[in-house]
Amino acid sequence: MPMVEVKIKAGRTIEQKREIALRMTEVLVEVCGSARDRVHVIITEVGEDNWGRGGRLLSDIG
Amino acid sequence: MPMVEVKIKAGRTIEQKREIALRMTEVLVEVCGSARDRVHVIITEVGEDNWGRGGRLLSDIG
Amino acid sequence: MPMVEVKIKAGRTIEQKREIALRMTEVLVEVCGSARDRVHVIITEVGEDNWGRGGRLLSDIG
Amino acid sequence: MPMVEVKIKAGRTIEQKREIALRMTEVLVEVCGSARDRVHVIITEVGEDNWGRGGRLLSDIG
Amino acid sequence: MPMVEVKIKAGRTIEQKREIALRMTEVLVEVCGSARDRVHVIITEVGEDNWGRGGRLLSDIG
Amino acid sequence: MPMVEVKIKAGRTIEQKREIALRMTEVLVEVCGSARDRVHVIITEVGEDNWGRGGRLLSDIG
Repeated sequence: MPMVEVKIKAGRTIEQKREIALRMTEVLVEVCGSARDRVHVIITEVGEDNWGRGGRLLSDIG
Repeated sequence: MPMVEVKIKAGRTIEQKREIALRMTEVLVEVCGSARDRVHVIITEVGEDNWGRGGRLLSDIG
Repeated sequence: MPMVEVKIKAGRTIEQKREIALRMTEVLVEVCGSARDRVHVIITEVGEDNWGRGGRLLSDIG
Repeated sequence: MPMVEVKIKAGRTIEQKREIALRMTEVLVEVCGSARDRVHVIITEVGEDNWGRGGRLLSDIG
Repeated sequence: MPMVEVKIKAGRTIEQKREIALRMTEVLVEVCGSARDRVHVIITEVGEDNWGRGGRLLSDIG
Repeated sequence: MPMVEVKIKAGRTIEQKREIALRMTEVLVEVCGSARDRVHVIITEVGEDNWGRGGRLLSDIG
């Protein structure tokens, strides 16, 4: 059932994505007793031109 | 008014997207009486490297 | 796999929600060949004080 | 930077929410090197009347 | 067309929501030339028990 | 704290994105007293093939 959406800066390796999917699923299985096969983790990679913090784009913050 | 966001595996044809947009709009017009022109359907295509189920990436599940 | 999020004005009956969940699932099963049991439909009801269109809250538009 | 949104069935205890927030933050700190203080975890609790799976509301699946 | 979703801590006044809806719409009308009536702003209020930052719930950070 | 997600048609210039990030941050700083550095603005650009309005894709509406 649970649906996890992770928004992170673009440029992650597939190894990192595997780890994120695996470990976030385990958090919900262990903490909420969720059925493993029902847990979905969607990773959205956001470019630095498309993410602003404090009023500035990350690509400008550097 | 209603806003529908559909997250699906990447790789759909434009015909499929037309059908999704049309038929999901009709569901809300018929079930909720929504004004057709106010219904928005956004389709987000997610790569298999970015979608985890049961702790594994779809690209690894195959 | 597919995840559908429907944002609609608050106040729908459970019958309407059943119809939305059923029919939106059928759209994806028929158009994309999705496995029925993998289709999730999440309905988010938004109060009129929390939805703005054209710069005005729906509760003010009336 | 990373933003995690967790959609789960309504009715979690505050202890469970603490665990989810803590452990999901740790996943991103350890896997992506994210700055701990920049990681946000938003937990959205969804009622069983508002979550459909396989075309049926969870409240009807029981 | 544009859809803005604002997630903020619960407890805003309706005056604040009016301002958010109005001014965020104006940003898109002025910067992107969006048609005013097509701009949607959805405000999601999140309780402090449901928002974690730096691994702790806001309600614990105080 | 606040998290703003802006979904707009693909094809915006970086100048427009800078303006959106800056001005939407200012709305929340001025209206809600948010800490500037805590405000995140994520811009999601959606292709015209992936956005339906009134049951038709924007790419078909033209």
